[in-house]
Amino acid sequence: MQFFEDFAVGDTHEFGEYDVTLSEVLEFAERYDPQWFHTDPERAEAESMYGGVIASGWHTASMTMRLFVDGVLSDAASLGAKGVEELRWWKPVYPGDTLVVESEVLETTVETDDRGLVEIRTRTFAERESGEVELVCSFVSDVMLARRNGTWGSP
Amino acid sequence: MQFFEDFAVGDTHEFGEYDVTLSEVLEFAERYDPQWFHTDPERAEAESMYGGVIASGWHTASMTMRLFVDGVLSDAASLGAKGVEELRWWKPVYPGDTLVVESEVLETTVETDDRGLVEIRTRTFAERESGEVELVCSFVSDVMLARRNGTWGSP
Repeated sequence: MQFFEDFAVGDTHEFGEYDVTLSEVLEFAERYDPQWFHTDPERAEAESMYGGVIASGWHTASMTMRLFVDGVLSDAASLGAKGVEELRWWKPVYPGDTLVVESEVLETTVETDDRGLVEIRTRTFAERESGEVELVCSFVSDVMLARRNGTWGSP
Repeated sequence: MQFFEDFAVGDTHEFGEYDVTLSEVLEFAERYDPQWFHTDPERAEAESMYGGVIASGWHTASMTMRLFVDGVLSDAASLGAKGVEELRWWKPVYPGDTLVVESEVLETTVETDDRGLVEIRTRTFAERESGEVELVCSFVSDVMLARRNGTWGSP
Protein backbone atom coordinates (compact mmCIF):
# COMPACT_ATOMS: atom_id res chain seq x y z
CA MET A 1 0.00 0.00 0.00
CA GLN A 2 1.36 3.38 -1.03
CA PHE A 3 0.80 6.33 1.28
CA PHE A 4 1.27 10.07 0.77
CA GLU A 5 4.93 9.76 1.77
CA ASP A 6 5.56 7.31 -1.07
CA PHE A 7 4.81 9.89 -3.77
CA ALA A 8 7.72 12.12 -4.81
CA VAL A 9 7.87 15.01 -7.24
CA GLY A 10 9.10 13.75 -10.59
CA ASP A 11 7.81 10.17 -10.21
CA THR A 12 6.50 8.94 -13.54
CA HIS A 13 4.50 5.90 -14.57
CA GLU A 14 3.15 4.60 -17.83
CA PHE A 15 0.14 2.31 -17.92
CA GLY A 16 -2.61 1.06 -20.17
CA GLU A 17 -4.12 -0.19 -22.46
CA TYR A 18 -7.79 0.65 -22.99
CA ASP A 19 -9.45 -0.38 -26.24
CA VAL A 20 -12.03 2.16 -27.32
CA THR A 21 -15.03 0.43 -28.89
CA LEU A 22 -17.84 1.95 -30.93
CA SER A 23 -20.48 0.36 -28.71
CA GLU A 24 -18.98 1.87 -25.56
CA VAL A 25 -18.55 5.29 -27.21
CA LEU A 26 -22.24 5.28 -28.16
CA GLU A 27 -23.43 3.90 -24.83
CA PHE A 28 -21.58 6.53 -22.80
CA ALA A 29 -22.66 9.37 -25.07
CA GLU A 30 -26.31 8.32 -25.15
CA ARG A 31 -26.37 8.47 -21.39
CA TYR A 32 -24.13 11.43 -20.58
CA ASP A 33 -23.34 13.49 -23.67
CA PRO A 34 -25.98 12.96 -26.37
CA GLN A 35 -24.59 15.30 -29.01
CA TRP A 36 -24.88 13.95 -32.55
CA PHE A 37 -21.13 13.82 -33.23
CA HIS A 38 -20.90 11.38 -30.26
CA THR A 39 -24.05 9.34 -30.91
CA ASP A 40 -24.73 9.21 -34.66
CA PRO A 41 -21.94 7.55 -36.69
CA GLU A 42 -23.59 8.15 -40.07
CA ARG A 43 -24.27 11.83 -39.55
CA ALA A 44 -20.85 12.31 -37.93
CA GLU A 45 -19.13 10.79 -40.95
CA ALA A 46 -21.15 12.94 -43.35
CA GLU A 47 -21.22 16.29 -41.53
CA SER A 48 -18.85 16.52 -38.59
CA MET A 49 -15.53 18.34 -38.71
CA TYR A 50 -14.07 15.27 -36.98
CA GLY A 51 -14.81 12.99 -39.93
CA GLY A 52 -16.59 10.38 -37.83
CA VAL A 53 -18.11 9.69 -34.46
CA ILE A 54 -15.79 10.56 -31.54
CA ALA A 55 -15.83 9.76 -27.83
CA SER A 56 -17.28 12.30 -25.43
CA GLY A 57 -14.47 14.16 -23.70
CA TRP A 58 -15.92 13.05 -20.37
CA HIS A 59 -15.73 9.47 -21.61
CA THR A 60 -12.07 9.94 -22.51
CA ALA A 61 -11.41 11.38 -19.06
CA SER A 62 -13.28 8.46 -17.48
CA MET A 63 -11.33 5.86 -19.47
CA THR A 64 -8.14 7.65 -18.40
CA MET A 65 -9.32 7.45 -14.80
CA ARG A 66 -9.84 3.71 -15.13
CA LEU A 67 -6.27 3.27 -16.31
CA PHE A 68 -5.04 5.58 -13.54
CA VAL A 69 -6.91 3.61 -10.87
CA ASP A 70 -5.64 0.28 -12.19
CA GLY A 71 -2.11 1.62 -12.68
CA VAL A 72 -1.61 3.78 -9.59
CA LEU A 73 -4.49 4.34 -7.18
CA SER A 74 -5.54 0.73 -6.59
CA ASP A 75 -2.35 0.23 -4.55
CA ALA A 76 -2.52 3.63 -2.87
CA ALA A 77 -4.34 4.97 0.18
CA SER A 78 -6.42 7.27 -1.99
CA LEU A 79 -9.11 9.33 -0.32
CA GLY A 80 -10.55 10.85 -3.49
CA ALA A 81 -9.70 13.98 -5.45
CA LYS A 82 -10.52 17.61 -4.82
CA GLY A 83 -10.50 18.69 -8.39
CA VAL A 84 -8.77 18.95 -11.71
CA GLU A 85 -7.02 21.74 -13.61
CA GLU A 86 -6.02 22.09 -17.22
CA LEU A 87 -8.27 19.38 -18.59
CA ARG A 88 -7.57 19.49 -22.33
CA TRP A 89 -8.97 17.45 -25.17
CA TRP A 90 -6.12 17.91 -27.64
CA LYS A 91 -7.40 15.58 -30.34
CA PRO A 92 -10.52 13.48 -30.85
CA VAL A 93 -10.67 9.88 -29.65
CA TYR A 94 -12.13 7.46 -32.20
CA PRO A 95 -13.55 3.95 -31.90
CA GLY A 96 -10.67 1.59 -32.63
CA ASP A 97 -8.11 3.67 -30.75
CA THR A 98 -6.14 2.17 -27.88
CA LEU A 99 -5.44 4.50 -24.97
CA VAL A 100 -2.32 4.52 -22.83
CA VAL A 101 -1.57 6.93 -20.00
CA GLU A 102 1.55 8.54 -18.54
CA SER A 103 1.47 10.11 -15.10
CA GLU A 104 3.89 12.47 -13.36
CA VAL A 105 3.86 13.76 -9.80
CA LEU A 106 4.11 17.57 -9.92
CA GLU A 107 3.77 18.56 -6.27
CA THR A 108 3.15 17.09 -2.81
CA THR A 109 1.66 19.06 0.07
CA VAL A 110 0.97 17.99 3.65
CA GLU A 111 -2.61 19.00 4.49
CA THR A 112 -3.21 17.57 7.97
CA ASP A 113 -1.65 14.96 10.26
CA ASP A 114 -3.78 12.42 8.44
CA ARG A 115 -3.73 13.53 4.85
CA GLY A 116 -1.63 14.96 2.06
CA LEU A 117 -2.38 16.30 -1.38
CA VAL A 118 -0.55 15.00 -4.46
CA GLU A 119 -0.76 16.92 -7.71
CA ILE A 120 -0.48 14.48 -10.60
CA ARG A 121 -0.52 15.19 -14.33
CA THR A 122 -1.87 12.48 -16.58
CA ARG A 123 -1.37 12.45 -20.33
CA THR A 124 -3.51 10.16 -22.43
CA PHE A 125 -2.24 8.94 -25.79
CA ALA A 126 -4.28 7.25 -28.49
CA GLU A 127 -2.72 4.63 -30.69
CA ARG A 128 -4.73 4.90 -33.88
CA GLU A 129 -5.63 1.96 -36.07
CA SER A 130 -2.97 3.32 -38.46
CA GLY A 131 -0.34 2.83 -35.74
CA GLU A 132 0.15 6.57 -35.24
CA VAL A 133 0.26 7.71 -31.60
CA GLU A 134 -1.14 11.10 -30.59
CA LEU A 135 -1.68 12.99 -27.36
CA VAL A 136 -5.45 13.24 -26.97
CA CYS A 137 -6.11 14.38 -23.40
CA SER A 138 -4.30 15.69 -20.34
CA PHE A 139 -5.21 16.97 -16.92
CA VAL A 140 -3.77 17.73 -13.49
CA SER A 141 -5.53 16.09 -10.52
CA ASP A 142 -5.37 17.02 -6.85
CA VAL A 143 -5.50 13.61 -5.19
CA MET A 144 -5.86 13.24 -1.42
CA LEU A 145 -3.78 10.44 0.07
CA ALA A 146 -3.68 9.11 3.61
CA ARG A 147 -0.42 9.66 5.49
CA ARG A 148 1.37 6.58 6.66
CA ASN A 149 0.98 7.27 10.37
CA GLY A 150 -2.33 9.13 10.26
CA THR A 151 -5.76 8.08 11.49
CA TRP A 152 -6.74 7.23 7.92
CA GLY A 153 -3.45 5.47 7.41
CA SER A 154 -4.73 1.95 7.96
CA PRO A 155 -8.20 1.88 6.52
CA MET B 1 -30.83 26.72 -33.27
CA GLN B 2 -28.46 28.88 -31.22
CA PHE B 3 -25.17 29.92 -32.79
CA PHE B 4 -22.08 31.54 -31.32
CA GLU B 5 -23.61 34.98 -31.75
CA ASP B 6 -26.55 34.02 -29.53
CA PHE B 7 -24.38 33.57 -26.44
CA ALA B 8 -23.68 36.71 -24.42
CA VAL B 9 -21.52 37.27 -21.36
CA GLY B 10 -23.70 37.12 -18.27
CA ASP B 11 -26.37 34.81 -19.72
CA THR B 12 -27.51 32.38 -17.06
CA HIS B 13 -29.63 29.25 -17.16
CA GLU B 14 -30.82 26.77 -14.57
CA PHE B 15 -31.72 23.24 -15.53
CA GLY B 16 -32.15 19.76 -14.12
CA GLU B 17 -33.07 17.42 -12.50
CA TYR B 18 -30.94 14.24 -12.38
CA ASP B 19 -31.77 11.59 -9.80
CA VAL B 20 -28.62 9.87 -8.56
CA THR B 21 -29.26 6.18 -7.98
CA LEU B 22 -27.14 3.67 -6.12
CA SER B 23 -27.17 1.28 -9.07
CA GLU B 24 -25.86 3.93 -11.46
CA VAL B 25 -23.21 5.09 -8.97
CA LEU B 26 -21.93 1.52 -8.68
CA GLU B 27 -22.17 0.78 -12.40
CA PHE B 28 -20.19 3.87 -13.40
CA ALA B 29 -17.56 3.32 -10.71
CA GLU B 30 -17.08 -0.36 -11.47
CA ARG B 31 -16.30 0.55 -15.05
CA TYR B 32 -14.36 3.81 -14.74
CA ASP B 33 -13.32 4.50 -11.15
CA PRO B 34 -13.21 1.27 -9.13
CA GLN B 35 -12.06 2.70 -5.81
CA TRP B 36 -13.77 1.08 -2.81
CA PHE B 37 -15.47 4.27 -1.58
CA HIS B 38 -17.26 4.36 -4.96
CA THR B 39 -17.98 0.64 -5.37
CA ASP B 40 -18.44 -0.95 -1.92
CA PRO B 41 -21.37 0.51 0.06
CA GLU B 42 -20.74 -1.59 3.17
CA ARG B 43 -17.06 -0.80 3.47
CA ALA B 44 -17.71 2.85 2.60
CA GLU B 45 -20.25 3.14 5.39
CA ALA B 46 -17.91 1.48 7.88
CA GLU B 47 -14.56 3.01 6.95
CA SER B 48 -14.80 5.98 4.59
CA MET B 49 -14.46 9.59 5.70
CA TYR B 50 -17.54 10.27 3.54
CA GLY B 51 -19.80 8.06 5.68
CA GLY B 52 -21.09 6.06 2.76
CA VAL B 53 -20.59 5.27 -0.88
CA ILE B 54 -20.23 8.36 -3.10
CA ALA B 55 -20.34 8.97 -6.83
CA SER B 56 -17.07 9.14 -8.76
CA GLY B 57 -16.21 12.75 -9.47
CA TRP B 58 -16.10 11.87 -13.17
CA HIS B 59 -19.60 10.48 -12.84
CA THR B 60 -20.77 13.74 -11.26
CA ALA B 61 -19.16 15.69 -14.10
CA SER B 62 -20.80 13.36 -16.63
CA MET B 63 -24.26 13.73 -15.06
CA THR B 64 -23.72 17.50 -15.11
CA MET B 65 -22.83 17.25 -18.79
CA ARG B 66 -26.06 15.39 -19.49
CA LEU B 67 -28.08 18.18 -17.88
CA PHE B 68 -26.01 20.77 -19.75
CA VAL B 69 -26.61 19.05 -23.09
CA ASP B 70 -30.35 18.72 -22.44
CA GLY B 71 -30.62 22.27 -21.08
CA VAL B 72 -28.33 24.22 -23.41
CA LEU B 73 -26.30 22.40 -26.06
CA SER B 74 -29.06 20.34 -27.67
CA ASP B 75 -30.43 23.55 -29.22
CA ALA B 76 -27.01 24.99 -30.02
CA ALA B 77 -24.58 24.55 -32.91
CA SER B 78 -22.04 22.94 -30.60
CA LEU B 79 -18.83 21.62 -32.14
CA GLY B 80 -17.41 20.07 -28.96
CA ALA B 81 -15.25 21.45 -26.19
CA LYS B 82 -11.53 22.15 -26.05
CA GLY B 83 -11.15 21.67 -22.36
CA VAL B 84 -12.14 22.50 -18.83
CA GLU B 85 -10.62 24.59 -16.07
CA GLU B 86 -11.29 24.74 -12.35
CA LEU B 87 -13.08 21.41 -12.08
CA ARG B 88 -13.89 21.17 -8.36
CA TRP B 89 -15.64 18.51 -6.37
CA TRP B 90 -16.74 20.65 -3.44
CA LYS B 91 -18.80 18.02 -1.63
CA PRO B 92 -19.56 14.33 -2.17
CA VAL B 93 -22.56 13.23 -4.23
CA TYR B 94 -24.58 10.44 -2.61
CA PRO B 95 -27.15 8.03 -4.00
CA GLY B 96 -30.56 9.60 -3.40
CA ASP B 97 -29.37 13.12 -4.27
CA THR B 98 -31.03 15.08 -7.06
CA LEU B 99 -28.72 17.24 -9.15
CA VAL B 100 -29.57 20.60 -10.70
CA VAL B 101 -27.21 22.80 -12.68
CA GLU B 102 -26.75 26.53 -13.18
CA SER B 103 -24.72 27.86 -16.09
CA GLU B 104 -23.26 31.28 -16.77
CA VAL B 105 -21.50 32.59 -19.88
CA LEU B 106 -18.18 34.11 -18.79
CA GLU B 107 -16.55 35.05 -22.08
CA THR B 108 -17.06 34.81 -25.84
CA THR B 109 -14.22 34.86 -28.37
CA VAL B 110 -14.31 34.74 -32.16
CA GLU B 111 -11.86 32.07 -33.33
CA THR B 112 -12.34 31.87 -37.08
CA ASP B 113 -14.93 32.93 -39.65
CA ASP B 114 -16.69 29.66 -38.90
CA ARG B 115 -16.32 29.21 -35.18
CA GLY B 116 -16.30 30.94 -31.81
CA LEU B 117 -15.35 29.90 -28.31
CA VAL B 118 -17.76 30.34 -25.40
CA GLU B 119 -16.47 30.02 -21.85
CA ILE B 120 -19.27 28.72 -19.65
CA ARG B 121 -19.22 28.01 -15.91
CA THR B 122 -21.52 25.31 -14.64
CA ARG B 123 -22.35 24.83 -11.00
CA THR B 124 -23.93 21.57 -9.88
CA PHE B 125 -26.07 21.49 -6.76
CA ALA B 126 -27.27 18.38 -4.91
CA GLU B 127 -30.60 18.34 -3.21
CA ARG B 128 -30.09 15.83 -0.42
CA GLU B 129 -32.75 13.44 0.80
CA SER B 130 -32.96 15.76 3.85
CA GLY B 131 -34.01 18.62 1.56
CA GLU B 132 -30.74 20.50 2.08
CA VAL B 133 -29.15 21.89 -1.10
CA GLU B 134 -25.36 22.06 -1.46
CA LEU B 135 -22.91 23.02 -4.18
CA VAL B 136 -21.12 19.78 -5.11
CA CYS B 137 -19.25 20.46 -8.35
CA SER B 138 -18.28 23.29 -10.66
CA PHE B 139 -16.19 23.76 -13.76
CA VAL B 140 -15.51 26.16 -16.61
CA SER B 141 -15.81 24.72 -20.15
CA ASP B 142 -14.42 26.10 -23.40
CA VAL B 143 -17.18 25.20 -25.85
CA MET B 144 -16.76 25.67 -29.60
CA LEU B 145 -19.88 26.93 -31.38
CA ALA B 146 -20.53 27.42 -35.06
CA ARG B 147 -20.99 31.02 -36.20
CA ARG B 148 -24.32 31.85 -37.80
CA ASN B 149 -22.93 32.64 -41.23
CA GLY B 150 -19.95 30.27 -41.21
CA THR B 151 -19.36 27.11 -43.18
CA TRP B 152 -20.29 25.08 -40.11
CA GLY B 153 -23.27 27.32 -39.52
CA SER B 154 -25.88 25.06 -41.08
CA PRO B 155 -24.79 21.55 -40.29
